[in-house]
Amino acid sequence: MISNELSGFVRNIKDFPKQGIMFRDITTLLKEPKALNKTLELLFEKAEIAAPTKVAGIESRGFIFGGMLANRLNVGFIPIRKPGKLPAKTISQTYELEYGTDKLEIHEDAVQPGDRILIHDDLLATGGTALAACSLVEKLGGIVVQNSFIIELSFLNGRSKLRSYDVVSLINYSSEE
Amino acid sequence: MISNELSGFVRNIKDFPKQGIMFRDITTLLKEPKALNKTLELLFEKAEIAAPTKVAGIESRGFIFGGMLANRLNVGFIPIRKPGKLPAKTISQTYELEYGTDKLEIHEDAVQPGDRILIHDDLLATGGTALAACSLVEKLGGIVVQNSFIIELSFLNGRSKLRSYDVVSLINYSSEE
Repeated sequence: MISNELSGFVRNIKDFPKQGIMFRDITTLLKEPKALNKTLELLFEKAEIAAPTKVAGIESRGFIFGGMLANRLNVGFIPIRKPGKLPAKTISQTYELEYGTDKLEIHEDAVQPGDRILIHDDLLATGGTALAACSLVEKLGGIVVQNSFIIELSFLNGRSKLRSYDVVSLINYSSEE
Repeated sequence: MISNELSGFVRNIKDFPKQGIMFRDITTLLKEPKALNKTLELLFEKAEIAAPTKVAGIESRGFIFGGMLANRLNVGFIPIRKPGKLPAKTISQTYELEYGTDKLEIHEDAVQPGDRILIHDDLLATGGTALAACSLVEKLGGIVVQNSFIIELSFLNGRSKLRSYDVVSLINYSSEE
């Protein structure tokens, strides 16, 4: 199976979560062991070069391959979560949504100064969430060595927001169709 | 490292999410590669015996080791999620909380009749969430072959609610202290 074949395992769902949006559903990829393994191996190949000391996964779908990737790289895993979920001392970062704002949190002791952090999420859209995650890591003295995604929606131009970082994605959609 | 040594990696946080609750925080275990690997290997040993054809993880913390476990077993992964998150056709199951109710959803096509499903979550408390997950799998014709947890709070007696199932946990707390 080559990288492009992975896209055949992604299901397209019209008008989710709202009218006009084509949702790229990875649950159909996750349930096929070959596609799941291939995805992990491709993410791993890219991740290995960046030599992270920890993998941070963004809640919730970023936890799935984030955890696998940490284990495959033999490094620790850090959850980056929605507000109020992490029980110890946290720092937070607000970011813009289409309407309004949202917030992400990380434990203060999750990152040590100099830690090389790979940030994983399943999807790169406008890049707002990933950029907030990068800020959290850097506030704690960590170095963001890669932003890794399964899917990229390049027509939303998320890479421009992440231009100071190494950005990796496996499957690209250049339009909403 | 033996199983009991794992508990040394769990952080105890008083009065989270509310007064009187001792929260068992696994983020300190996740960030240590040795503890993460050991946890996975212990879950895998137990899981292998149950011979699942898929692993279902309960949102959100159940996604972390759920994904790893699916990959280690070389089977597919199914997310069981909070309402409104899964984009395709779902079925749902309501369950009781201390105050009020909550709901879980699964994609209708996530489980085929006869599929052997291992359900993973990080924590077994009263068992309400896990039992709802079992109902979802069974409504779709699946067989629940194991409920697997990292942590069990045995003083909340979740096993009695799951008495028709194989229940596995790695670390037990017999009281709130």
